[in-house]
Amino acid sequence: MNESITLKYQPLFRFCMDVFQHYSFSYDNSKIISDVLLLADLFGIQSHGVQRMFRYHKGLKDGSMHPDTKAGTVFETGISAVIDGNMAMGQVTSYHAMNLAIQKAKENGVGLVTVRNSNHYGIAGFYAKMAADQGLIGISCTNTAAVSVPTFGSYAMLGSNPIAVAVPAHPHLFLFDASTTVVARGKVEVYNKAGKQLPPNWAVDGRGQITQDAAQALSCTLSREGGLLPLGGAGEETGGYKGYGYGILCELMSSILSLGVTCNHVTISGGGVSHGFAAIDLKLFGEPERIIDHFSTFLQELRNTPKAQGADRVYVHGEKEQINYERRMKEGIPIQPKTFLEMREMAEDVGLDIRQYFDVAS
Amino acid sequence: MNESITLKYQPLFRFCMDVFQHYSFSYDNSKIISDVLLLADLFGIQSHGVQRMFRYHKGLKDGSMHPDTKAGTVFETGISAVIDGNMAMGQVTSYHAMNLAIQKAKENGVGLVTVRNSNHYGIAGFYAKMAADQGLIGISCTNTAAVSVPTFGSYAMLGSNPIAVAVPAHPHLFLFDASTTVVARGKVEVYNKAGKQLPPNWAVDGRGQITQDAAQALSCTLSREGGLLPLGGAGEETGGYKGYGYGILCELMSSILSLGVTCNHVTISGGGVSHGFAAIDLKLFGEPERIIDHFSTFLQELRNTPKAQGADRVYVHGEKEQINYERRMKEGIPIQPKTFLEMREMAEDVGLDIRQYFDVAS
Repeated sequence: MNESITLKYQPLFRFCMDVFQHYSFSYDNSKIISDVLLLADLFGIQSHGVQRMFRYHKGLKDGSMHPDTKAGTVFETGISAVIDGNMAMGQVTSYHAMNLAIQKAKENGVGLVTVRNSNHYGIAGFYAKMAADQGLIGISCTNTAAVSVPTFGSYAMLGSNPIAVAVPAHPHLFLFDASTTVVARGKVEVYNKAGKQLPPNWAVDGRGQITQDAAQALSCTLSREGGLLPLGGAGEETGGYKGYGYGILCELMSSILSLGVTCNHVTISGGGVSHGFAAIDLKLFGEPERIIDHFSTFLQELRNTPKAQGADRVYVHGEKEQINYERRMKEGIPIQPKTFLEMREMAEDVGLDIRQYFDVAS
Repeated sequence: MNESITLKYQPLFRFCMDVFQHYSFSYDNSKIISDVLLLADLFGIQSHGVQRMFRYHKGLKDGSMHPDTKAGTVFETGISAVIDGNMAMGQVTSYHAMNLAIQKAKENGVGLVTVRNSNHYGIAGFYAKMAADQGLIGISCTNTAAVSVPTFGSYAMLGSNPIAVAVPAHPHLFLFDASTTVVARGKVEVYNKAGKQLPPNWAVDGRGQITQDAAQALSCTLSREGGLLPLGGAGEETGGYKGYGYGILCELMSSILSLGVTCNHVTISGGGVSHGFAAIDLKLFGEPERIIDHFSTFLQELRNTPKAQGADRVYVHGEKEQINYERRMKEGIPIQPKTFLEMREMAEDVGLDIRQYFDVAS
């Protein structure tokens, strides 16, 4: 029962659509949320895929999430906007915020859009990719509830605060999408479930000392006494203050510019997070095609680097995601049994027959 | 003779000015170069301070650097520019490039300026700070000769590629300035001189395996067979692919958008590097003063974080530099004896009497 189930993309998409439409999201908004969730699964980032859906389901069912609330623009110029998310679904607000950035970039070269009072928006890379798919540089970031200690600190003050940047390239786009902590909390959960000891530079306890106990590390991120380390690890010797700095930069683009709630005041339920989006037209620098070719050459030189003994391959960012995407579109998407049980429960709750989508024993 | 000598700021500034003016740099350009070098020393970043001067001195003496070459703008819009540095002094080109970005940001909200064919520009933070000193967000980055391996690679393909971001704040500005490698090459030099073993996650040898031998690590960065690790260390377990990604993003803003030379083709002498500069007006997001106050509150909350056992204090970025700056302006700047010998040699070469500046035995 621990082996994952493989579901085809099309019925999985239909299932997501039907559930969200049941919650009276419009077809368009249901498609946005379903696309964000399923791109994560297609990219192999299971933690942000349909396994998140049950959380939304619960929020919508108990009324803490509202399908009919809408974000509003509170300030705007030809190249920028500040949006109040009004606690609407993060994916819907973010999709429109990034489209606004893209539109401004196409008209005026750059679009900078910052969003406050929003909800979990899924993978940061989805929005960065929206811009790159249209030939622009795309940037996306979000703050989250605090789970990470600052350098020399013992109390969690920063979120996992991912930053994503997507850039057009051949044969596929460059897509960087990374938390500014050593690892995301989800990886610690995986170690905990497997009963494995953490590597020595992932987390600290409430005294600010390294802990390799996965269960303790998880409880530290919840109590905020201790937590994950910033990218670069503890202290300064391996550059931990750099990850700490990138965490603050994420905060700047999201909660600071929007006058939103900083990560240390975001509640653990994830309400009230802030996002930052940017789109930049390559035409600002002359000839987009030459720039894309130049970048693609550099990326290929990186791929061709002599590899370390024991390594299979040197990747560039977005390559693993591309490989996963192609395979999963063809062969299907692996889903954890627990997630599938949750999908059954959701189907029942909204009056859908799960057998209508998947060929499974009832 | 290994103890550092302390020199007062004013005579040191006069000395730098006189040397550069001797090389027929204008007063203004001499001041730019001197200011960039001395801010590094004042901030406590000795590796990028007057100890660099001897390198410029040699380049100017042997004719490989030309004081009379000038950068030229090759493409421009209201919010962007591409500059060809024509191999002029990196500081002079970069000062004007950042000022252009600032001017565009003041007029049109944003200024993005990218520079190719330039020289070593000193500390990245100097240029980011220029914008923040005028109330704007400032970004500055530069590629360098390749010294760092990509994740799973064994050959140096990326530079130390520092990225700096400065943001107005109280009581002093936020200034993030960091190489995208675990450490800069200069730190490995310090370990080598001290005969100390490197920490285990700084460098790899020509087979892509961890080396803790400082001398070997240095020679690897020169031969490029092996080299420094990206921020996050080896492999993926502690997020090394994230530092690798930030290294590529630095490259994007510098050599890619400018169609300059990517770091893997920059020569070790540092010729032909590229820079990226950006300035962003906070007015794009409504009320700059409220944004600065909001950011300052967050930074103060970080400073107030309970500290780890054994730690003195939780810093925010730019704070150590500010403390160093104030102390060194009052008490003087520590200079290595070797650097002072080079200063004597430079003085003799250009016909200056070093005793005119410093009260030292002849």
